Amino acid sequence: MKQEKLKFVLRGTLIHAPAVGVVEILENALVAVDNRGQISAVTSPGSPDYAALEQAATQAGKLERLAPQEYLLPGLVDTHVHAPQWPQLGKALDRPLDEWLQQYTFPLEARYADAEFAERIYQHLVHTLIANGTTTALYYATIHLESSVRLAEICLEQGQRALVGKVAMDNPDQCPEYYRDASAGQALEDTERFLEQVPDMPGNADGLVRPVITPRFIPACTDELLRGLGELAQRSGCHVQTHCSEGDWEHGYVLERHGKTDTCSLDDFGLLTARTVLAHCDFINESDMGIIKGAQTGISHCPLSNLYFANAVFPARQALDRGLQVGLGTDIAGGANPGILHNCQMAVTASRAREDGVNPDLPPATRGTPGTRIDFREAFWMATAGGGEALGLKVGKFVKDYAFDAIVVDTQAPDSNLIVREDLDEGDDILQKIIYNADRSNIKRVWVQGKLIKS
Amino acid sequence: MKQEKLKFVLRGTLIHAPAVGVVEILENALVAVDNRGQISAVTSPGSPDYAALEQAATQAGKLERLAPQEYLLPGLVDTHVHAPQWPQLGKALDRPLDEWLQQYTFPLEARYADAEFAERIYQHLVHTLIANGTTTALYYATIHLESSVRLAEICLEQGQRALVGKVAMDNPDQCPEYYRDASAGQALEDTERFLEQVPDMPGNADGLVRPVITPRFIPACTDELLRGLGELAQRSGCHVQTHCSEGDWEHGYVLERHGKTDTCSLDDFGLLTARTVLAHCDFINESDMGIIKGAQTGISHCPLSNLYFANAVFPARQALDRGLQVGLGTDIAGGANPGILHNCQMAVTASRAREDGVNPDLPPATRGTPGTRIDFREAFWMATAGGGEALGLKVGKFVKDYAFDAIVVDTQAPDSNLIVREDLDEGDDILQKIIYNADRSNIKRVWVQGKLIKS
Repeated sequence: MKQEKLKFVLRGTLIHAPAVGVVEILENALVAVDNRGQISAVTSPGSPDYAALEQAATQAGKLERLAPQEYLLPGLVDTHVHAPQWPQLGKALDRPLDEWLQQYTFPLEARYADAEFAERIYQHLVHTLIANGTTTALYYATIHLESSVRLAEICLEQGQRALVGKVAMDNPDQCPEYYRDASAGQALEDTERFLEQVPDMPGNADGLVRPVITPRFIPACTDELLRGLGELAQRSGCHVQTHCSEGDWEHGYVLERHGKTDTCSLDDFGLLTARTVLAHCDFINESDMGIIKGAQTGISHCPLSNLYFANAVFPARQALDRGLQVGLGTDIAGGANPGILHNCQMAVTASRAREDGVNPDLPPATRGTPGTRIDFREAFWMATAGGGEALGLKVGKFVKDYAFDAIVVDTQAPDSNLIVREDLDEGDDILQKIIYNADRSNIKRVWVQGKLIKS
Repeated sequence: MKQEKLKFVLRGTLIHAPAVGVVEILENALVAVDNRGQISAVTSPGSPDYAALEQAATQAGKLERLAPQEYLLPGLVDTHVHAPQWPQLGKALDRPLDEWLQQYTFPLEARYADAEFAERIYQHLVHTLIANGTTTALYYATIHLESSVRLAEICLEQGQRALVGKVAMDNPDQCPEYYRDASAGQALEDTERFLEQVPDMPGNADGLVRPVITPRFIPACTDELLRGLGELAQRSGCHVQTHCSEGDWEHGYVLERHGKTDTCSLDDFGLLTARTVLAHCDFINESDMGIIKGAQTGISHCPLSNLYFANAVFPARQALDRGLQVGLGTDIAGGANPGILHNCQMAVTASRAREDGVNPDLPPATRGTPGTRIDFREAFWMATAGGGEALGLKVGKFVKDYAFDAIVVDTQAPDSNLIVREDLDEGDDILQKIIYNADRSNIKRVWVQGKLIKS
């Protein structure tokens, strides 16, 4: 097989997390990207191949240098986005979950029957996520086939790596009449059509955008639908996403209806695969963790929405220590911030609340749970390589044969709250500062599969 | 006494919190500002004086109209900033408090003996806070007289309303030799000089910038110093700031050393006045609350640093319900974000963690503390009028005779994550969205005392 040709070589400081809790900083490194958009080499000064690569790239006019205040990071991976909820970002967070769903969310999602409405909102959402450095996103769309396909097309047009699901929800007991699939059969048929149409979209031969089997969550689906979607998952090998043990109500509902946890129930329906991502998993127990690990299923940790709608914080430390595949999710719009860097800090913050506890009336010994904190290194892992792992995609670190999905963070952008000073900051201090204060104004360039999509 | 002359009149939509938990939105309102920078009138269409004021302002060429997507909010009040820690924003948050203080913070603060270093950092800090909409800030400087005065001058030059304290800390048991006042006497003398110099700064006749008596916290001060500063507070009538019952260690230290809580101890030293602001107060008890209320002392709630260095979350709901004067503080750099709007959402988020709890292994009934949440309305109160009340300043709402300290939030700023749509959002939804997603790019204009300082 012939060597793919060199597309470009970047020289600059790279920061990535090659393993959980490990931050690697490579100064003046070279990253070579081939014509397929894959990383063909990563090398540092002193390596035997460094000078040759630099010389070859220079001669071919393909060497690009980052400025000293610029850092190359892996593109950010958002493993849980409800695309139709975008206009609701930051709204109604003071309402109880039931009201939030029935009075705000479902009526809003129902509007995506209107293709023109969907077009405007989805264009703006995908543009905004890219601007915030999200190179891969796992989206819930709505029950509507047409606008769900349109979301997939928009991701492809804007160049974002995306996994998109037409939502399946047919349970009349839990879903309003104006917003649910007409029947399990209809939901399955629409899902199958969606699974056919997305890979066939013009320009999608390389599978940049993929379809996802998406039972909303167990309460919203009949057993017939869950069974059918499980069979489809086994047959098609497609990705699957759903919510799992998110909050007290939902977790209790499934225990009551199926006599077992979400994890066991989803597993029994054939919905736990190596290409499944379970959002939240806040109330999974030891046994659930074992099942999820055995199935090589991914988890989307959504720290911000944990603190609003989940009644507890996902045990991130424990899950990472057990070797589960955990990525981060914004959970737009249950989570009110579209930035995965922001969700990195929230993952740390939420874990600090777990470790120390929050109630000053309790004595320190019983207030928190020792050993449950994570730090910015683990959060950064989840935001990048961990998300890639959860999705089964080779993205999220600078390693040969991984896709070149990357962002440049400019620490000296004007109008930014980030303060990095050469004389005071070094090493992973800089990454921590980026996580805490970089915003979209600092995200200067974004590539997906070697293609520049923000500059 | 003659009527002050009209400086300008703004017409547009105003949003403010005239009382705890109450958001008032005045569409097409007029705010008249006089030559002293005070609000001379606030009126809405339909009021008898509206047409006359509009006509008078138009004829005088003094009517300015906000665009439909612009909202006028009170300027934001930050009641707790460690100015010298600015370069440390977002750094070392993964370190234990002791290491954070001894290895990072104290060595950094010691550098402000260097006036040139102080100059660069303080200019950048004050500029950044203004850019984020902070019109009033209560600052800790360092132990150094010269650079502390310089901070006060910089605030005045940049036009920010500020209260600045030269830090007093003389206890050899708790403060490193390289960074403490030489003696209680020296600290008192320097504080007195600071109290004389700040009011006398050229251009400060109206008291835009004021000096603050600033014992760092009880552990850092000898009783001799605390006694002297208390006498100075009583004699001078100046503002006072210190930390109070922030975390387990500090709270326990004071119980051990003085046999009483921080609140009682500070009160006994004469440091609890109507012009005192106590940072944190996480571990104050019912009796402490009564003492603080009786003294009309303010509290600075710092939600972000609560979750990193305080071992618990301040009981904001309880304090507001008891009628205490509570403002918000960024606690830079124990809190890693310079924006008070961001700290509004963190105040809500932290209170949600308190109400629901965070540990999924506990049953719902014992996981959290019912009735402890606040929502964005209370957070916004604390960020504006509550902060003003805590400081004893007439700022933070649009009321006649209050200072015109205000910001314009542009909800359609390019490169913003804020999504406000006329057809979907109305009323205080818009405020909630602003709190959750406006950043400095949305803060288009900033006035302090009627003077435009960002545009």
